[in-house]
Amino acid sequence: MDVIVPFSADRPKSRLSTVLTAEERSSFARAMLRDVLDAITTAGGTPRVLATGPVDDLTHRVVVDDRPLTTAVNGVLESGVAENAESDTPSDDSDPIAIVMADVALATPEAVGKLFDAGQRADVVVAPGRGGGTNALVVDHPAFRVDYHGASYVDHRRIAEDVGASVGVVDSHRLATDIDEPADLAELLIHGDGAAARWLAEAGFTLETTDGRVGVVRE
Amino acid sequence: MDVIVPFSADRPKSRLSTVLTAEERSSFARAMLRDVLDAITTAGGTPRVLATGPVDDLTHRVVVDDRPLTTAVNGVLESGVAENAESDTPSDDSDPIAIVMADVALATPEAVGKLFDAGQRADVVVAPGRGGGTNALVVDHPAFRVDYHGASYVDHRRIAEDVGASVGVVDSHRLATDIDEPADLAELLIHGDGAAARWLAEAGFTLETTDGRVGVVRE
Repeated sequence: MDVIVPFSADRPKSRLSTVLTAEERSSFARAMLRDVLDAITTAGGTPRVLATGPVDDLTHRVVVDDRPLTTAVNGVLESGVAENAESDTPSDDSDPIAIVMADVALATPEAVGKLFDAGQRADVVVAPGRGGGTNALVVDHPAFRVDYHGASYVDHRRIAEDVGASVGVVDSHRLATDIDEPADLAELLIHGDGAAARWLAEAGFTLETTDGRVGVVRE
Repeated sequence: MDVIVPFSADRPKSRLSTVLTAEERSSFARAMLRDVLDAITTAGGTPRVLATGPVDDLTHRVVVDDRPLTTAVNGVLESGVAENAESDTPSDDSDPIAIVMADVALATPEAVGKLFDAGQRADVVVAPGRGGGTNALVVDHPAFRVDYHGASYVDHRRIAEDVGASVGVVDSHRLATDIDEPADLAELLIHGDGAAARWLAEAGFTLETTDGRVGVVRE
């Protein structure tokens, strides 16, 4: 399956600015991207990074599009439909396209595989992020478009309903965990075993339990 | 499968005290408990509420044990082993026991079913909660004991390893979402459709998006 991975190449992960410098955030975001690309590839997907600017040192295909996230992803969905319309091999519908966020660094091949499998059974599949976001999608309907602003999980279900697309939901803690804020770093230290978790450990982050709640400290 | 559901009957959900009165927290906690018991029952489990005090208006069995959570659950695990040892029907090992927290109000029969299924394939199955907690367990090993303090997900994996028990992990956003803090209420409004979600809606809570983040407001 073709998988779009949107990536902010310029100023990624601004909500981590209380614990990481701009340079560190850039390096950490790229480690997470590598983990996500690895999980997609191992699950049998073909990732394409949709970046706001150039991204060095990646073996995967990078397409630069500096428009806002929603506009850029909808551009891909529209061109996917166009490609199909121009295809030499007529078919009833285009191939599905998945969109997986670059910061779901807990993604494993198994979790991505659940997403792909669900994509066989519905026109639109949503993997919700914590807080009402959309961390991954599979789109197999020509009229569906994304809207990542606000509670996009709710909006994507509504948009699918509006265009008559069937909806599937993937129930995965790993896919629901986008790494946005300092509290999310604990999830990576607890559950991660890829480049991003190693990056954090090498940067001196460890788990700390205070008043029964688990967070991180930097040594 | 026998399923223990620990429940704080006296002062539940203290971290919601900024948005709910003590009486409301008690009522809301009981609505979540009902949702969890319904999901377990529909999934084919036999729930038993392990409460710190009496709980009225429940059709399910309630066992009162006012000891701390870890001690009370280990008491059940120990008596499970003892029951098996005294059983008229000798068997190689006791039946598995599941422990599901009373505040995983997004639990569906499908999510609980994933937990039960995983329990067929490992001696100890853990469904992590966000922040390193343990929201659900299946225990099918006589020497395993719980320790809910701190990053219990990590501890439970270590304890299982120490006693030679194989470990499975259930990757579920629904089981990972325990409703503890005001931010968690948004998850219930987004994904819930049971008694607890209705309780919140009737109490006037709605979703609100500020700066791209989704929270709740009370009208």
